This record gives sequence, C-alpha cells and structure tokens, in this order.
Amino acid sequence: MKEIGVGIIGLGIVGSGVYETLMQHSEEIARRTGVKLAVRKVADLDESRSRTLGVPDGVFTKNAKDIINNSSVDIVVELIGGYSPAGEYIVDSLNNHKHVVTANKALLAKQGAELAELASKNNVDLYFEASVAGGIPIIKALREGLAGNNINYIYGIVNGTCNYILTRMTYEKMGFERALKEAQKKGFAEANPTLDIEGDDSAHKLMILASIAFNTRIDLSDIHVEGITKLTHEDVEYADDLGYVIKLLAIAKRTGNEIEVRVHPTLVPKSSLLAYVRDEFNALLVDGDIVGTTMYYGKGAGKLAAASAIVSDIIDVGKNIQFGSPLRVKPFAHANNCKIKNIEEIRSLYYIRFTVLDTPGVLGHISSVLGKHGISIASVIQKAQHHGKHVPVVMMTHEALERDIRNALTEIDTLNSIKEKSALIRIA
Amino acid sequence: MKEIGVGIIGLGIVGSGVYETLMQHSEEIARRTGVKLAVRKVADLDESRSRTLGVPDGVFTKNAKDIINNSSVDIVVELIGGYSPAGEYIVDSLNNHKHVVTANKALLAKQGAELAELASKNNVDLYFEASVAGGIPIIKALREGLAGNNINYIYGIVNGTCNYILTRMTYEKMGFERALKEAQKKGFAEANPTLDIEGDDSAHKLMILASIAFNTRIDLSDIHVEGITKLTHEDVEYADDLGYVIKLLAIAKRTGNEIEVRVHPTLVPKSSLLAYVRDEFNALLVDGDIVGTTMYYGKGAGKLAAASAIVSDIIDVGKNIQFGSPLRVKPFAHANNCKIKNIEEIRSLYYIRFTVLDTPGVLGHISSVLGKHGISIASVIQKAQHHGKHVPVVMMTHEALERDIRNALTEIDTLNSIKEKSALIRIA
Repeated sequence: MKEIGVGIIGLGIVGSGVYETLMQHSEEIARRTGVKLAVRKVADLDESRSRTLGVPDGVFTKNAKDIINNSSVDIVVELIGGYSPAGEYIVDSLNNHKHVVTANKALLAKQGAELAELASKNNVDLYFEASVAGGIPIIKALREGLAGNNINYIYGIVNGTCNYILTRMTYEKMGFERALKEAQKKGFAEANPTLDIEGDDSAHKLMILASIAFNTRIDLSDIHVEGITKLTHEDVEYADDLGYVIKLLAIAKRTGNEIEVRVHPTLVPKSSLLAYVRDEFNALLVDGDIVGTTMYYGKGAGKLAAASAIVSDIIDVGKNIQFGSPLRVKPFAHANNCKIKNIEEIRSLYYIRFTVLDTPGVLGHISSVLGKHGISIASVIQKAQHHGKHVPVVMMTHEALERDIRNALTEIDTLNSIKEKSALIRIA
Repeated sequence: MKEIGVGIIGLGIVGSGVYETLMQHSEEIARRTGVKLAVRKVADLDESRSRTLGVPDGVFTKNAKDIINNSSVDIVVELIGGYSPAGEYIVDSLNNHKHVVTANKALLAKQGAELAELASKNNVDLYFEASVAGGIPIIKALREGLAGNNINYIYGIVNGTCNYILTRMTYEKMGFERALKEAQKKGFAEANPTLDIEGDDSAHKLMILASIAFNTRIDLSDIHVEGITKLTHEDVEYADDLGYVIKLLAIAKRTGNEIEVRVHPTLVPKSSLLAYVRDEFNALLVDGDIVGTTMYYGKGAGKLAAASAIVSDIIDVGKNIQFGSPLRVKPFAHANNCKIKNIEEIRSLYYIRFTVLDTPGVLGHISSVLGKHGISIASVIQKAQHHGKHVPVVMMTHEALERDIRNALTEIDTLNSIKEKSALIRIA
C-alpha cells in the first residue's frame, strides 16, 4: 500500500489537533479505510509548538516552502488561516500538483472559485470540510449524501460564538454585553469578536454552503449580513412568550432560478429542532426536494472538531490518490447561473417591536400604516398599560415583502407617538 | 461522458420513487456531479405499476434476469426486499460484475458479510445507504465524513413506526394499543407490525451501523432486542415527571475491544436532542473520539426519503465507474475482532417500576435487596398513599451491572408485597 505523504502548514490549535490525530489514529485509519497516511513535514514560525507536540527531528521546518516544494508530500494541509500568505501557499501548492486540504473559510469565501479552477487545471483536489461547522460532515452531505436532491433551503447555526451568547441571553436572562463577556471568559469568543458577532464569519460559511448547494457562483457581497449586537434581552423574552427562540441563522433558499442568501437574527419556532441547539454547538437544517427535511448537528469549532473534518478530508483525498481519481468531487460545480435576490425582494414573517407613547389610537395608527403597505398582522402583544408613558408593542406579521415592511417602518418611525427606531427581526 | 446504465428490480413504493427521481433529476444530476445516468430496464411482476409510471416500451420487463444479464446495465438496484429471490438476484448481479445498490436491511443483516466478500471478489460496489434511516446519509457519515474517528457510541432512533407510536403515547396520553391503531390508520404501521414493534427492524439496522462503525463482524444474534409492546402509558408519564422521554433506541457502544449492541425502550433525558425527535422521524447520535457528539436527523422511511439515499448511492457508484475506482469504499471493513458483551455484562442507569402492597416497611425491603446486590438508588417516586392497596413505586438507580439488577428483581418479585412483575427500562 503506497503511503500518502502529508504536510501541515500551521501548528496552531487546529494544526496541533490534526497532527495528534494522525499520530494516534493512522494505523486504525489504514485498517479501516485502506489509506496509509504519513506526516512528512510540519511548518510553523514558532518552533516551541513543534517541541510540545514531540515532532521528530527533520519533520519540523520554519519554512512553508519546505512543504510546498517537497516531493514526498502529496497533500498540503493549510491551517494558518487569513488571506496572506495562506492564499499564496495554496496557489503554489496547487501549481506544484499538490492536493490541498484547508479550513480557511475567509479565503474560500473571497477566492474559492478561483482556487477551485486552479485545482481543476492542475488535476488535484481542494477539500475544505472543516471550513463550515467544524466536525459536522455537511459539505460531504450536500455534495454526495444528498446528491440526488435539488436543495430547497438551508437554515444554519454556523457560528458557535453567537450561539453561545444567544443561549446565555435566552436561558440566563442576561443582555448582549454581559453574555459576550462571559463567552470571552469561557473561551467561546475572541478578544476581538467582531467577525463573529457582526455575522461576517457566518457569511463566509454561507457563501461556501450556498455555492455548493445551488451549484452557482455566489460572492460574499451578495449576502445580506446582520449580526447580533443590537439584540436586546427584551426581544429574547418576547420571542420566548410567542413560542420562539432567537438564533443567528445563515439562510440560503432557492425558488426556481432565484436564490436568497442572508445572515441575521431569526425567530425560530420551538417546534423546530434548531431551537434546541444550544451553547457553542452548530446545526444545519437542509431541505431537499426528495429527502425532505434533514438536520446535522455537532461542535462547530475547537481543536478536535475541526481536526475530525480535516483528517476525514485527508483520507478522502488519500483515496483519490490511491485510485487515481482526483477531482472525483469538484470543489465547486457552478453549473447553474442563479439570480440572487436583493434583501428587499425577500418574503418573510416579521417580528416588530415598537416603542410607543401609550395614548388612545396609537395602535390604530400603526395598523393603518401597515395595512396601507399591504402588511397584515398575525398577533399583537401589548402587556402593561401606562397611559402617557412609552411602552413596547410587539407585532408578528403574516408573510410580507421586505420592501413593504421597510417602507412601512420608515413611515411609522416618524409618527409622534413612536419614541425610537422600531426593532425588526425576521421569523423562520 | 459515458452514460451509466441503471436497472431497477422492483417498482413498489421505493422503486417508483427512484424511477421518478431519476427521470426528473438526471439532467441536473449530470450537471452537478458529472455523472450521466440512464434507466435501461425496470422489472416488476405487476406491469400496471410500470404503466402508471409511464415507463417507455422496451424498458419494462417482468423478468429480473433481463436486468441481471443485460450488458447495458452497469448498476442493478434491488428494491424488492426480503431474502429470496432478492438474495439470489444480488448474488447473480455481483457475479455478473454488476454493481449493486440496495435498501434490503433484512438481507444485509443476515448475509451482508458474505455479499460484501462477493462484491470484493468481483471488484464491484455494493452500496446500501437506504437500508438505515432512509434519506439520512448516515452510512456515508460513518465511513467517510467521520473517517478520522474511532466511534465511541451510536444512539439511534431508526424505526419510524415505533417513534410515531411513542410520540402519540407521550404527547396524546394514549396507551400502546390505541397508538398502534392510529399509526396503522395513518399509514405509519403495517397491518402486521411485528417486525417494527418487536424491535427486529431496528436490530437489522443496528447490525449494519455497528459493523461499519466498529469495523467488526456482528451477527444479528449478537444483538439484544426488546420491542415497545410492553410499555405502558404509566411508564411514559413517570418518565416525563422525571425529565425523560421514552424512545426505542438502537445502541452500539465500544469500550476498548468490547462492544455492546442492543435495541430496547430507553429513557432519554430532555436535555438530549434525541428527546425532540418526534413522529415518524429518525435520528442518530454519533459520538466519535475526535469530533465529539454529532447528530443526524430526517425521515426514516417513505417513498422519496429512501429514493434520495438510493439515487445518491447510484451517483456514488456511477463516479466509481467513471473513475475506475470500484471498492473505493468497501461495504464492510471487518478489520477488527471485537468481543461482544452479553446483555448481562452491560452497565446502565435503570428505571424500575414496582407494583407493591402499600404497607409499612415495603420500601425498606426493596431497598435492602437492591443494596445487597450492590445497586444504589438515585431517586424514588411514590405518589399517593393507599394503605392496604397495590400502588406503583418508581425508582431510578445509579449505574449498575445488568446482571445485578436482574438478580435483585428476581428476588424482589418473589416478595409477598409485590403484586406483579416489576417493569425495567434502561436509561440513556
């Protein structure tokens, strides 16, 4: 059995996990799958990481080129993240006819299509299961396990940091700021959490998921992105009263040849399994036209969850090398040319929280503006009566066009009886 | 692009679903995956099914041999079920160097190991994703998506009929018999439901799952099987009070080189996502040593759910044909030689319901027998007091050895104050 040579660039948390997994499991993997993996080189700028892992002499290098140009390396595993030099390393590896496994969602979201083309041109594989939802084999499910289906939609909880924060806000009745601090203390949020809490990380993953699910090219700028920073504990409580849990969802939907791709806080009904996905876990609800609704759940981040996906990718690519079948599964197919809807063109149910001066007739005013824009109200909550004070009024709408909702809110927010900008959250 | 010839044996519900899916989706599938599928022949004893589907002249046959011996057929899809003639058809197809896709769990559970060997000998593929949990790509997840992991355990809800019945018993406060009747009326249980409600169908699926997860040969007779027919509504309600939902689980666990494989009603804590898997849905909780806990959810049965898995298998095998990589994934690896525990050797938490004559000292009696056998009690429910009458007493134990529990119950059930055989349910 030919040994498959593996080179790992980056011995951070995930890289160390991959190294350890390969050291501990490669014999069992060979027996189970017929693929014999050998780590030939690992590269990192910091040699102490290599020493901690007990990497043998001659295997460690500070220079990534020693991997990219190494004739004994078949698969380059890029785990340094970021755009540069990771992008150059991947390009050079592909051009050197090395197969590449990566978890670099930011890079893929930016130039996945070009990298996929380069891989195809060089007749080598580019695998990236770990780029979305950690250890959950969702990319494999979309490309292979559900290959007979046209995908109708994906609802994904794909950012563990946000889900941890929202779980604290929901079950421990705390506001966003306090929940974020706790997430940082527990290691579920970074010191600079912007990429996570503003929804950009989810958008990177959604670009990858939707491109594969719909086989169409999607650019990051096509995705409408809202983070969780403006959510209040009040909204979380109203949602609970109404039978919903607020989650940050990455949503991809296809209707005919039109698709919508968006990331935003969403009211998820408690009748959905997604409502029970808590803490740092991820989950993806995938609806296919043949299979119906399926769900995939697991840890979305962390040393070993990502290592599981990366090692499974390495095994897959290893099989392709053994069987001489590179590009058996193309990184992206892009066979369709779907039209991407602007956010104003989507239709949804909506949760709206108004802050109104509690005077007679104010509810009538709001309703008539909504009605004028063709929006019908499904339910209203107005809890306490405090005549002459500002109180919250919560409404749930029937399905409406986002443009109509926006126009109605712009008009309502200018009313004298409205104290502040109304809060708008979409409902799944 | 070479067209891949497909022959379908059996145009029942699933076979019709596969035919329709291939007719409607093959162009999209070709664009998405690069595999061009053509249905060359379909066989059924009943020609009217073929007419209903609009199968063109020359494609229908009443004779399965017209498929098995057809040089234009690359992949034989066996969907008649049962042991014979399905077994002979598969054997003949493999010997004719045809690849085989099947959903026949009963046959695989009985002679999967032999069929796998025959496929290997003939250098052709034998795929069977649809044999377990319908459209959920769980076999692919175990063999490929989680390939880097040693699997610690699988907890599976793999029988939609039982889960539908248990859901009715849990949420509509009905007994087993009435829930079964409703399931039959709604089409979720067959007229003769024995195979489902006695747990045998779940055991077939567990044999397949555990063989793959642990890479060891497991025979159907190795599996301890209990169905749901003896469950009472009383137990469902006590479980609810204690924070649990009763599910029929197919459990496979590995500890070192020892494995346990069992199917039985189980108390699932409401903190587990499995507790929220309702109606006819299936789900599998899979714990791997690298990835941690993951879950897979979807429809376990029905025309199209199964068709999704079968068509995805056909695409996979089609790729193997295109790339000349048959046996890229072996049907079963069987590289390990695990010892299978007898049910008496397992350790679990237990729920026990005693029916006792409510007299002073009876609880003390029971506790002392349990204590003598090394079993410690975690909690007790004894609701109403009816001196001199028979009342239920429910206990939850800490982890105990099944043999000890059984010995203790045998002793307790002979006590004068015990009216009937005590009910024992394991806790997940």
